[in-house]
Amino acid sequence: MKKIAVFTSGGDAPGMNACIRAVVRTAIFHNIEIYGISYGYDGMINGNIKRMHSYSVSNIIQRGGTILKSARSEDFRTPEGRKKAFAKLTEQGIEGIVAIGGDGTFTGAKTFFEEFGMPIIGCPGTIDNDIYGTDYTIGFDTAVNTALEAIDKIRDTAAAHDRIFFVEVMGRDSGYIAVECGIGGGAEFVMVPETKTDLNKVVKSLKNLRKSKSSSIIVVAEGDEEGGGEEIMHKVEEKLKDADKDFKVTTLGHIQRGGNPTARDRVLASRCGMAAVEGLLKGEQNCMAGVVNGEVVYTPFADCIGKSKALNEDHLRLIEILSI
Amino acid sequence: MKKIAVFTSGGDAPGMNACIRAVVRTAIFHNIEIYGISYGYDGMINGNIKRMHSYSVSNIIQRGGTILKSARSEDFRTPEGRKKAFAKLTEQGIEGIVAIGGDGTFTGAKTFFEEFGMPIIGCPGTIDNDIYGTDYTIGFDTAVNTALEAIDKIRDTAAAHDRIFFVEVMGRDSGYIAVECGIGGGAEFVMVPETKTDLNKVVKSLKNLRKSKSSSIIVVAEGDEEGGGEEIMHKVEEKLKDADKDFKVTTLGHIQRGGNPTARDRVLASRCGMAAVEGLLKGEQNCMAGVVNGEVVYTPFADCIGKSKALNEDHLRLIEILSI
Amino acid sequence: MKKIAVFTSGGDAPGMNACIRAVVRTAIFHNIEIYGISYGYDGMINGNIKRMHSYSVSNIIQRGGTILKSARSEDFRTPEGRKKAFAKLTEQGIEGIVAIGGDGTFTGAKTFFEEFGMPIIGCPGTIDNDIYGTDYTIGFDTAVNTALEAIDKIRDTAAAHDRIFFVEVMGRDSGYIAVECGIGGGAEFVMVPETKTDLNKVVKSLKNLRKSKSSSIIVVAEGDEEGGGEEIMHKVEEKLKDADKDFKVTTLGHIQRGGNPTARDRVLASRCGMAAVEGLLKGEQNCMAGVVNGEVVYTPFADCIGKSKALNEDHLRLIEILSI
Amino acid sequence: MKKIAVFTSGGDAPGMNACIRAVVRTAIFHNIEIYGISYGYDGMINGNIKRMHSYSVSNIIQRGGTILKSARSEDFRTPEGRKKAFAKLTEQGIEGIVAIGGDGTFTGAKTFFEEFGMPIIGCPGTIDNDIYGTDYTIGFDTAVNTALEAIDKIRDTAAAHDRIFFVEVMGRDSGYIAVECGIGGGAEFVMVPETKTDLNKVVKSLKNLRKSKSSSIIVVAEGDEEGGGEEIMHKVEEKLKDADKDFKVTTLGHIQRGGNPTARDRVLASRCGMAAVEGLLKGEQNCMAGVVNGEVVYTPFADCIGKSKALNEDHLRLIEILSI
Repeated sequence: MKKIAVFTSGGDAPGMNACIRAVVRTAIFHNIEIYGISYGYDGMINGNIKRMHSYSVSNIIQRGGTILKSARSEDFRTPEGRKKAFAKLTEQGIEGIVAIGGDGTFTGAKTFFEEFGMPIIGCPGTIDNDIYGTDYTIGFDTAVNTALEAIDKIRDTAAAHDRIFFVEVMGRDSGYIAVECGIGGGAEFVMVPETKTDLNKVVKSLKNLRKSKSSSIIVVAEGDEEGGGEEIMHKVEEKLKDADKDFKVTTLGHIQRGGNPTARDRVLASRCGMAAVEGLLKGEQNCMAGVVNGEVVYTPFADCIGKSKALNEDHLRLIEILSI
Repeated sequence: MKKIAVFTSGGDAPGMNACIRAVVRTAIFHNIEIYGISYGYDGMINGNIKRMHSYSVSNIIQRGGTILKSARSEDFRTPEGRKKAFAKLTEQGIEGIVAIGGDGTFTGAKTFFEEFGMPIIGCPGTIDNDIYGTDYTIGFDTAVNTALEAIDKIRDTAAAHDRIFFVEVMGRDSGYIAVECGIGGGAEFVMVPETKTDLNKVVKSLKNLRKSKSSSIIVVAEGDEEGGGEEIMHKVEEKLKDADKDFKVTTLGHIQRGGNPTARDRVLASRCGMAAVEGLLKGEQNCMAGVVNGEVVYTPFADCIGKSKALNEDHLRLIEILSI
Repeated sequence: MKKIAVFTSGGDAPGMNACIRAVVRTAIFHNIEIYGISYGYDGMINGNIKRMHSYSVSNIIQRGGTILKSARSEDFRTPEGRKKAFAKLTEQGIEGIVAIGGDGTFTGAKTFFEEFGMPIIGCPGTIDNDIYGTDYTIGFDTAVNTALEAIDKIRDTAAAHDRIFFVEVMGRDSGYIAVECGIGGGAEFVMVPETKTDLNKVVKSLKNLRKSKSSSIIVVAEGDEEGGGEEIMHKVEEKLKDADKDFKVTTLGHIQRGGNPTARDRVLASRCGMAAVEGLLKGEQNCMAGVVNGEVVYTPFADCIGKSKALNEDHLRLIEILSI
Repeated sequence: MKKIAVFTSGGDAPGMNACIRAVVRTAIFHNIEIYGISYGYDGMINGNIKRMHSYSVSNIIQRGGTILKSARSEDFRTPEGRKKAFAKLTEQGIEGIVAIGGDGTFTGAKTFFEEFGMPIIGCPGTIDNDIYGTDYTIGFDTAVNTALEAIDKIRDTAAAHDRIFFVEVMGRDSGYIAVECGIGGGAEFVMVPETKTDLNKVVKSLKNLRKSKSSSIIVVAEGDEEGGGEEIMHKVEEKLKDADKDFKVTTLGHIQRGGNPTARDRVLASRCGMAAVEGLLKGEQNCMAGVVNGEVVYTPFADCIGKSKALNEDHLRLIEILSI
């Protein structure tokens, strides 16, 4: 293989740049020409493909965001769109692709491989950590720490005023970020989509808060079945009917998607990026390079998208026990 | 004066603890017994008053929140409530008070002084920076930097997706936080209550964004007359009618009230705290100890509450010029 | 088991407080009386043992340091000292102990168990990550991120002046922190005790730096056989004999031991703390509760101290390939 | 004036990029062609001068370092060197210059103006805050906060082990950074060049530390007459002769020069940059644009270099009183 390309797609995640850097430098190390596709699948269709060099990725390892940008692409969902994309790639002589993104990205990649046989390997770039085939996704650790720093600040003001704070964190349909933040933030409760949220239990507990525990933090994953942070706060306020308790809600929002990646995310991103390129060289394709139990593994896209990762049971117990 | 007390009131602000520490240690340095009133005016009424020592304030200089807590007090607004408070203070032999808070706190302090003649000096503890008599309030610098770090993270994700982000920051009825963040965050526009917001101008500018400036940040002060971040985003989206532009909004909320205070806030808090105690010793009363042009000044409560501080003209020009 | 005690010992590490909190609350959850021993083994000998409650550990989960303090104890190395310690514990009716620390702590614990049969389980609290029986130690992730933030700042100034910076990080005799920082910081080289450092190779590489790569960062583990950061910088400067290259060195020092723990450290600390208490209840003893491949495991102290964990080969390759 | 140039020189400081950005965009706002000189005076001599545009400074406001680099220039100290520099500038039609740096930079600028009459205005870019004509220099606030965060971490580990830590901070021959850090970090003592350091007083105080104040932080400015942190620690250890006290030293070093600039530094940098360009348009020259008491002022280079700014008396008192 002499020419490969790399792109980022889907929601951006801190560490994507570190991954791009690893892909570029590993390719150069193996004497392969490396091209960057900007704006994801849309850029592929538009031929937005440029040669990259070692210096193209200098000083980006610590930056959030992605120098190759990201975009949704309606066109790539159509056979014509994908045909155009393949034509542009062939024009440049691209023989293999590294796709950094989430399962939306991998769904497109899988289809593309099945239609055109273009070898393509993915790297798990998303803050949600809901991808099968890797213990952690690139961006998850940073998002959790960003949310946790925010919760630490909220804790200061909650304690000052004896307030009960509902904090909504990201995660789409998963509770990974919520659970890690819940434990790290010393939350009273964590509400996640994976388990049924019993609001009556929450209300009962808030009624009986220890005298010395006059402030509380309740973490809500955006995809919880009872609603987001604001909705749940109102439901609980309703049921509690206690004028003495003061409720507030904060939706952390998009700050969880940006910022300098943590050490874990930079290392994970680098390992996956290097593994993706070396996987292409070894003949791997239509799969994602992830890290499971400390080792690099290649998992078929079908499994990444199809299978699910359960939340850690121990973690759920921790929240219950440690909030007494 | 042999016995004085200190309390914090109103919205909490990072640096309040550093201020309490300065009050306590300055009092001890001058051989004065110092007492801490917990829960603000409410605590005063309930006699929640305890002796403090040098070690009571060890290791709190870097902490957000306030070890003396804060609370709203309906009772203190009544003459009976204030009579009870004065009785409790007299019981303990308190001869002077340091009140750390915002103009709500000072309004109560002024009334209390007029009714009972209790010497009382304030320290400007609020993130809003809208108090006359001091260039900066304790907590403002930290709140601005907290909001700025959040905006830096949002910038990463905005740039990755070519989005236009509306970011709502705190400030009650003032635009101080918004303006500092707007400049520091390289915002396209800043919308503040002090100036009339022209949405048409915003829309026109967004229509003509330079090709290479595909993402933008617009900072909105919560008290802007056109509404908060979410409301303004919808109005602009309405007027723009451009399917190509992608809008998002983030309301930073209460993270702006917490966190470790910055260096400026710790130094300002320490200076004001020391000045408040030494002011009481010198016979100052019914005023606030603030810092103007680098010097400590004592400003009558009436002025702190009544007069207003204009936004810096230079700052407003900066945003206009530097966002081209 | 009705009464257990907990203490911290050895070099402090961020997350120790989160671990103490987990031990205390898990004990209370299981209706066990929990006691805190201050100042480690020294405190044990002096009977510095106090009852702890749920509120004793409120608001400490995010704090660096340890509320139970730490101390070296010459006395505990003697049979008399340990006899005194056992007497003090028996006096209080302590039936089991959780020891949070590094292998120095576990060496003492193992001896203590062998002499008196006191059930004792350890939690891996040290920033060095050199303990067998757990993938990561409590405090490692925070120390790495602290060092990495420092390296990010150094990168700014190195790039501004085209300098070559040697950065010395902690790790005692291991290169774990150095390797993670080396990857995350985009270092040119990483020098660790586990591999032979070839200074001539470093010199040769610096001679041939790409035109666009005029600044470099070289990470040195404090235990490297060629010396610390300063010594190695002088050796390289000597061999390079290039007046054009500008060398600087920074020894990060003790900032790596403090600060708020990261999310990973808080979660790991909580899991280990809970597992230690529940281990005592299940009859585990003379072992350490750690996390390997995401699962809690109990490893005999002898192995924790005696066996070693190899550096990750992939990580070493990463540094070589990605610095081109 | 139709064409101006900007450069950075001397030790880099966080906020220099924000200043460059302000210069570039203010120039463009006034329809002036703006050129960037890389590598300071050296680049001027070598004709390293490039046209800049609005997008040249996109997304740099939050970055430490300087995109125009910095360098020492022996050649510029010679008349021939300066003649060459002037020739290169004239070649490009440059009619005015903005020089961002410290007094070394201004010394060269003053000489250059006197020899060739080239209008040149400076912006105070240095972390030392030792420049007359501005209350604060660009980079000072960030350096202080960086040092303060490090001291907060050291405080954690000092408290855990009852240690006395000497922390050396930057500042060249001034104690500004040391004093701000000393107050904000709750230091026992601060040793600065501006006041005579009495080591016997330090020793006496350490002997009498309150029982509950078993750990201490002593901040040392690098230019103190008794030596740097390490030297002073040994002198004190010598005099104290107390085996019970445990001493450590940390030299913070170059981390104080890098990192994202704080809000104050970004705003100050922006104001100075804009004022420098508008100053050139108004006919100001051979002076520095700084901010004093909230207003922009132009101060002759001779005064910036020649006059000194005294440390704030209040600040020195604070340290003494608040460390009891």
